Amino acid sequence: MTDTLIANDSTTTVNSADDSGIILGANQYGKAEVRVVKVTRDTARHEIEDLNVTSQLRGDFARAHLEGDNSHVVATDTQKNTIFAFARDGVGSPEAFLLRLAEHFTSSFDWVSGGRWEAESFAWQRIEAHGAGHDHSFVRSGQEIRTAVVVADGADRHVIAGLKELTVLKTTQSGFAGYPKDRYTTLQETADRILATDVAARWRYTSPEVDYNAVYENVRALLLEAFTEQYSAALQTTLFDMGRRVLERHPEIGEIRFSMPNKHHFVVDLAPFGLDNPNEVFYAADRPYGLIEATVTRDGLAPAPVAWEGIAGFC
Amino acid sequence: MTDTLIANDSTTTVNSADDSGIILGANQYGKAEVRVVKVTRDTARHEIEDLNVTSQLRGDFARAHLEGDNSHVVATDTQKNTIFAFARDGVGSPEAFLLRLAEHFTSSFDWVSGGRWEAESFAWQRIEAHGAGHDHSFVRSGQEIRTAVVVADGADRHVIAGLKELTVLKTTQSGFAGYPKDRYTTLQETADRILATDVAARWRYTSPEVDYNAVYENVRALLLEAFTEQYSAALQTTLFDMGRRVLERHPEIGEIRFSMPNKHHFVVDLAPFGLDNPNEVFYAADRPYGLIEATVTRDGLAPAPVAWEGIAGFC
Amino acid sequence: MTDTLIANDSTTTVNSADDSGIILGANQYGKAEVRVVKVTRDTARHEIEDLNVTSQLRGDFARAHLEGDNSHVVATDTQKNTIFAFARDGVGSPEAFLLRLAEHFTSSFDWVSGGRWEAESFAWQRIEAHGAGHDHSFVRSGQEIRTAVVVADGADRHVIAGLKELTVLKTTQSGFAGYPKDRYTTLQETADRILATDVAARWRYTSPEVDYNAVYENVRALLLEAFTEQYSAALQTTLFDMGRRVLERHPEIGEIRFSMPNKHHFVVDLAPFGLDNPNEVFYAADRPYGLIEATVTRDGLAPAPVAWEGIAGFC
Amino acid sequence: MTDTLIANDSTTTVNSADDSGIILGANQYGKAEVRVVKVTRDTARHEIEDLNVTSQLRGDFARAHLEGDNSHVVATDTQKNTIFAFARDGVGSPEAFLLRLAEHFTSSFDWVSGGRWEAESFAWQRIEAHGAGHDHSFVRSGQEIRTAVVVADGADRHVIAGLKELTVLKTTQSGFAGYPKDRYTTLQETADRILATDVAARWRYTSPEVDYNAVYENVRALLLEAFTEQYSAALQTTLFDMGRRVLERHPEIGEIRFSMPNKHHFVVDLAPFGLDNPNEVFYAADRPYGLIEATVTRDGLAPAPVAWEGIAGFC
Repeated sequence: MTDTLIANDSTTTVNSADDSGIILGANQYGKAEVRVVKVTRDTARHEIEDLNVTSQLRGDFARAHLEGDNSHVVATDTQKNTIFAFARDGVGSPEAFLLRLAEHFTSSFDWVSGGRWEAESFAWQRIEAHGAGHDHSFVRSGQEIRTAVVVADGADRHVIAGLKELTVLKTTQSGFAGYPKDRYTTLQETADRILATDVAARWRYTSPEVDYNAVYENVRALLLEAFTEQYSAALQTTLFDMGRRVLERHPEIGEIRFSMPNKHHFVVDLAPFGLDNPNEVFYAADRPYGLIEATVTRDGLAPAPVAWEGIAGFC
Repeated sequence: MTDTLIANDSTTTVNSADDSGIILGANQYGKAEVRVVKVTRDTARHEIEDLNVTSQLRGDFARAHLEGDNSHVVATDTQKNTIFAFARDGVGSPEAFLLRLAEHFTSSFDWVSGGRWEAESFAWQRIEAHGAGHDHSFVRSGQEIRTAVVVADGADRHVIAGLKELTVLKTTQSGFAGYPKDRYTTLQETADRILATDVAARWRYTSPEVDYNAVYENVRALLLEAFTEQYSAALQTTLFDMGRRVLERHPEIGEIRFSMPNKHHFVVDLAPFGLDNPNEVFYAADRPYGLIEATVTRDGLAPAPVAWEGIAGFC
Repeated sequence: MTDTLIANDSTTTVNSADDSGIILGANQYGKAEVRVVKVTRDTARHEIEDLNVTSQLRGDFARAHLEGDNSHVVATDTQKNTIFAFARDGVGSPEAFLLRLAEHFTSSFDWVSGGRWEAESFAWQRIEAHGAGHDHSFVRSGQEIRTAVVVADGADRHVIAGLKELTVLKTTQSGFAGYPKDRYTTLQETADRILATDVAARWRYTSPEVDYNAVYENVRALLLEAFTEQYSAALQTTLFDMGRRVLERHPEIGEIRFSMPNKHHFVVDLAPFGLDNPNEVFYAADRPYGLIEATVTRDGLAPAPVAWEGIAGFC
Repeated sequence: MTDTLIANDSTTTVNSADDSGIILGANQYGKAEVRVVKVTRDTARHEIEDLNVTSQLRGDFARAHLEGDNSHVVATDTQKNTIFAFARDGVGSPEAFLLRLAEHFTSSFDWVSGGRWEAESFAWQRIEAHGAGHDHSFVRSGQEIRTAVVVADGADRHVIAGLKELTVLKTTQSGFAGYPKDRYTTLQETADRILATDVAARWRYTSPEVDYNAVYENVRALLLEAFTEQYSAALQTTLFDMGRRVLERHPEIGEIRFSMPNKHHFVVDLAPFGLDNPNEVFYAADRPYGLIEATVTRDGLAPAPVAWEGIAGFC
């Protein structure tokens, strides 16, 4: 997010209004959260794609900031219109759609050297009626939100796929022990607890040839499988196992990052009421929560900090 | 919510601190949003029940309000403890669990003449691994939230089941035409639009013998079926059809109420960009939205206003 | 919310599509959350009014529900347009604005027998610059949201004013003791605790002649004053004192209702770390919370259930 | 967020469980959103500090991820306890409090090489009663949330202060014109519109000697002043002016970043209703919104990417 990270050729020339030494640094702007729904209705069996798209341009916008000269400012309203217009030809996958937007903006305006396009994608299932999925009626899946980010940096294109709010819980096969004790430690060790989290993950593609929708479904399945099968010595071990499985199966993915809350479920002390509680009754706490964040990557992978800029936490 | 609706025998005697004529009216209090998770682990195949429970007591609490005398105030902390203790014996269904709480509080304290107990219930699905649902690993369903309310009013027990946030959408077979036009009307008629809503419904049982979980699943299916099958001349007709089907199949339900937003999806005008848009690209708006609320009931059903008090809108 | 509460003359005649005995009960519909901002700029010193308005009509809408006949359905889009058009003449107060809308809809359409209009109102303060409030620059106050409801029921007009999200806290002069102890009680008595709540209050006017803005400011001040000055034996006593003061000073108000969470601040046990904690370090919990709801009213006041229908909880 | 950015000496040695080439990359973990309220009550005039604190440790945690060995994992529960214990000695300022936590964790555990501590701070005002601020009763200010981040990276300490959700609006002295028009442009130019935003800003201190509370108040005042005084040719120019004023007055600040939505207020077309609308009636839209993000910095300032990692967008 600094000058060295975001190309902004004007930085050293016109971006200071005076000799104060105060200059414009990295910047981007655009239209956020354009809610576009695309229905494909070539046949009676309709398809629906439901996106929340954000478009942000980077390049030479110094005069707008310093002089009130908007001659380079592609209006955010225009960016919105472009998103709707491009949806006329279909979405395909969030990643492919964002790549099309990136090409358009960087090729249409000389001073746009790059940008960042982001999408949330909401899944819909066909409503079951009389034993079959309906042609044009849908119920929102609600399980997780699929995410995508495309960053254009000069000629480079970075594609990051992901998901968030995939809430999972296992009622056993999780513990936490062997941690260091100091003056402030009161936590008791356990070999049997509830483990619950909202999986947020983002993975970066290192190949330009990807079937984005197919890989998404498979990564999602691998994440669930890893959560399910392994004894969890800590959420950290579960996290690494999730990432390891994804990288093992998907050579087109270079790295995967996770941000996962440890959503505490405390065993309620029922002894004052004359009752035992063999891990059956829990209080699900809101805050505070543990927060475990890590990257699982390939040895020797070239880092791509520009791809990850502006992403909150690790995801 | 008035003296005539909530029994409060103390109203006319001790509920005024002085001769100002200012008195205590209807009141209730308790502990809200107790997040209790019950795991049943008698076998290796665990079951999970996940509730958000609110307990509120009604009765003779005037001295607490007027004199700072808490001798009748069953602590909200005690109500919370009771919820956890009762969960030790299992939940069964939200409705049955709330009925047990109602019995306990009204029978344990002379001055508690009734109350209101409410629950949200969150569904979990077994994670699929190697083609089978896992024994102890779950993913949150996320589709809708099941709701339940039990109102105790003296010896009466009212049970209201429901759901909320069931988001559905149909891409065609919906229109809106034939409405009155006045000076302020600019809306164009249409015979083909997207219809989308978040279904919130509550239905009141008029029989004490109900398999709450089974009926819930069936009502949910009927609501989806009605949304799916009928041409919608307005969200009002869809709503009534949803309610009609539920009452036709479930004699144990006396009335059902709906509160459904009309979540507008506007066709984007792509003509300025040289593109047509035959109902393919839509802008999904947030606010404002239509709001359609109605009761579908049985002719001659005795009304039960005390059961519905305090429910926002119609649901 | 039943036929006896909401006038709906068509109930007994045309509201059933067949002889199933299934009929349409109470219903209302309209446009929700119309975000209208009115700027008054007659002079260089601008004024701003910022509202979130919901309009819902009641009357004879049976044919829309049962037959798909929209000839009575004043489009929700038309209701929205009307709100914007009426704002052209100014807002004045939320209550007065809603009363104008009520008059318009009930007088313009024979079959509209009443309705419900609701507003949230957001406060803006002038930005201080060089020691004076600026002419046209504002910062959102953010402290509380003002609320208003007007219910038209035939010729009757009910006006309910209110506020919500007024978050207050006192660090002492609050306790809780003398409550009954049973098998499930573990709470310890205290004579010194933090008391914190988000005040939500609604008061019903019983006079048609009210300076709504002036009374609002005064009621708000009285609520804060009561919270501040009295030792709180329980949130119930504080609540009643707040209501009592409002009714004592404002004869135009017949009743006032409160819904107030007891936002728990637990003293943290620092003894394991060799530290005392004389009520200095607290953990602010999210859920569960206490929930105290009550009405303070005048002896002999005629109840007005129709005015309060559809309000969640007590507020 | 890559190995080159976060010191993690174990990366090249033990962080792979096998010879798959799949390794652990950057990581951090801790306890999030610890809600701590500190009351200072040495005299009858109490003071209140209200924080939401997140603590995250960085260092050698590879064995926890790869081998389920928790011997380095300072429990997140211990981190929470430490926050409460440290609050016993007071907070002072969010920045100073986070710096104390950073010193503690990095000096107490050999393998903790750094970390990230973040706080939100909520402001309370004394309730006015009888013309004076009350000793121990407070109302939550609600206007903005103060933020602070401390990053420890080996011996380095980075301190970033900020605020968010400071909602401001000007009713005139804002326009947008002179922007490029392309095939997708439909926006009309204007010299008079509403400008509204939620200011989110973060500024990085380059001096270790700062009166954090005093500078915060002054920066906040400068931001409001800049928003107020200048004609806004675009939100970009207003943003730069806000940053420029802060850097001019505060040499201890090296750079300031902004993320500001352009919260659109559209003039409602009242012509169909026979009314004019000279910028008096507006529709306040939710989504989409413009999003303007930029850094204002000093020429030649050494960048500090490690300080900014994990911050969503520019703020």
